[in-house]
Amino acid sequence: MKQLKSHKTFEGKTEFWSHESAATKTEMKFSTFIPNSEVKGCLIWLSGLTCTEENFITKAGAQKFLAEKNLMVIAPDTSPRGLNLHGEHDSYDFGSGAGFYLNATTPGYADHYKMDDYIVNDLYNVITNEFKVKNVSIFGHSMGGHGALVLGLRNPDKFKAVSAFSPIVHPSVSPWGMKAFNGYLGNDKSAWSAYDATELLMSGKKHPAKILVHQGLQDEFFAKELLTEHLREAAQKAGQEFEINLCEGYDHSYYFISTFMEVHVAHHAKYLN
Amino acid sequence: MKQLKSHKTFEGKTEFWSHESAATKTEMKFSTFIPNSEVKGCLIWLSGLTCTEENFITKAGAQKFLAEKNLMVIAPDTSPRGLNLHGEHDSYDFGSGAGFYLNATTPGYADHYKMDDYIVNDLYNVITNEFKVKNVSIFGHSMGGHGALVLGLRNPDKFKAVSAFSPIVHPSVSPWGMKAFNGYLGNDKSAWSAYDATELLMSGKKHPAKILVHQGLQDEFFAKELLTEHLREAAQKAGQEFEINLCEGYDHSYYFISTFMEVHVAHHAKYLN
Repeated sequence: MKQLKSHKTFEGKTEFWSHESAATKTEMKFSTFIPNSEVKGCLIWLSGLTCTEENFITKAGAQKFLAEKNLMVIAPDTSPRGLNLHGEHDSYDFGSGAGFYLNATTPGYADHYKMDDYIVNDLYNVITNEFKVKNVSIFGHSMGGHGALVLGLRNPDKFKAVSAFSPIVHPSVSPWGMKAFNGYLGNDKSAWSAYDATELLMSGKKHPAKILVHQGLQDEFFAKELLTEHLREAAQKAGQEFEINLCEGYDHSYYFISTFMEVHVAHHAKYLN
Repeated sequence: MKQLKSHKTFEGKTEFWSHESAATKTEMKFSTFIPNSEVKGCLIWLSGLTCTEENFITKAGAQKFLAEKNLMVIAPDTSPRGLNLHGEHDSYDFGSGAGFYLNATTPGYADHYKMDDYIVNDLYNVITNEFKVKNVSIFGHSMGGHGALVLGLRNPDKFKAVSAFSPIVHPSVSPWGMKAFNGYLGNDKSAWSAYDATELLMSGKKHPAKILVHQGLQDEFFAKELLTEHLREAAQKAGQEFEINLCEGYDHSYYFISTFMEVHVAHHAKYLN
């Protein structure tokens, strides 16, 4: 694990790192904020399409609230980098910058696009073994909100809380998700539901903590890609505790995320402290 | 004045604008945050080298604190754009992205690089005439900290408070400043002191409000470019009220700025409310 940069922030440290991932067989980068206090827990932040390890840590304004709650955050890159797979760099919503937090099974991608394993094993082990923090939770935005919901529902023992901003909640039936699942998992749709939060809830998966969601109503992707109401219906049927906040006037940007960051950090603090 | 983008943020609006500047004879861009309340005053933020109207508004985490104090902010670009003057795009510390908030007098630059007039007249008039806000103050970072100190000391009636992060306080004797002054004002150094905060204080200029400065001690530019102690000496001799905070471990980045943003907004609120 190599430290690339370190910036004192709210008495703690905002830092950038790289390490070799067994899952992706590439060098992966991530950012952290570590408060200047005994760390009570760690939130994993999963970013959205086109993002890197830098967007969240520079734009979300999370450091102040994390410092106040004695929590650290770790924000990984959104895909493997430095490869040249077929079609990997052709569009913003597939391949580089668009890993979708799953284990790919299609030729070429199966060798490297193991973002599920990367988050759940490699990055999780960095938190427990390198940073010596035991309580871990997960949250994210858009594609990363999808990742947080899916990985949280699949691994409730590892992730003590789950929340999401503007998540893609039903990727099996929305354009971004269908494109990604076709490319990473192939066209046999029976493989898709394992990476779809709505389908996971409908199949009986639940998380013991309340799932918190904020969704802007002026979000340009709300109606077509995010399908927030599908999550509400599935959670209600499954008996999953949840809170979905539809936010009048807010869009898909980090300006929206920063507005409700304090609420999400407080939510995770309840389960991590 | 043309609105380019609008994002709801902390119940208010983060917005991007363009307008024609009489001072620079170019289209200029700026960003704003306007709280969802009766606006009590407006802070002008001047950014540092290489920045645009975007850096502050995305990275400083100011919106929360501005909303709490019923204040707006306006953050202009750091130079005219769309020109092709001799040497304008050759280096990061002169020409585009490096206007130094002065009125240039050298050939070519004299026609457009009138950033002093742009801030003090054009942008000031946008605040009072378009946004209908009367109480105005000024702050900034690095080159923009220099701009805030200089324009504040030169126009104490227009700017009710002045503060700076990591300002270039004595540009007449530091490398960035000397390069800029040579290029924009020529090599007759008698013209330089009108745009040098330390020299202005030594010549008797004062501001009625306390000048607040935060400076990181791990700032790579501290010793060579910023010369913070020159400001302290000049302010002491001049009888200028000031508070210089030397911050152990902090660097020149927006991580540092975000850490002390709440303190600066509160400082301005005292004079603007």
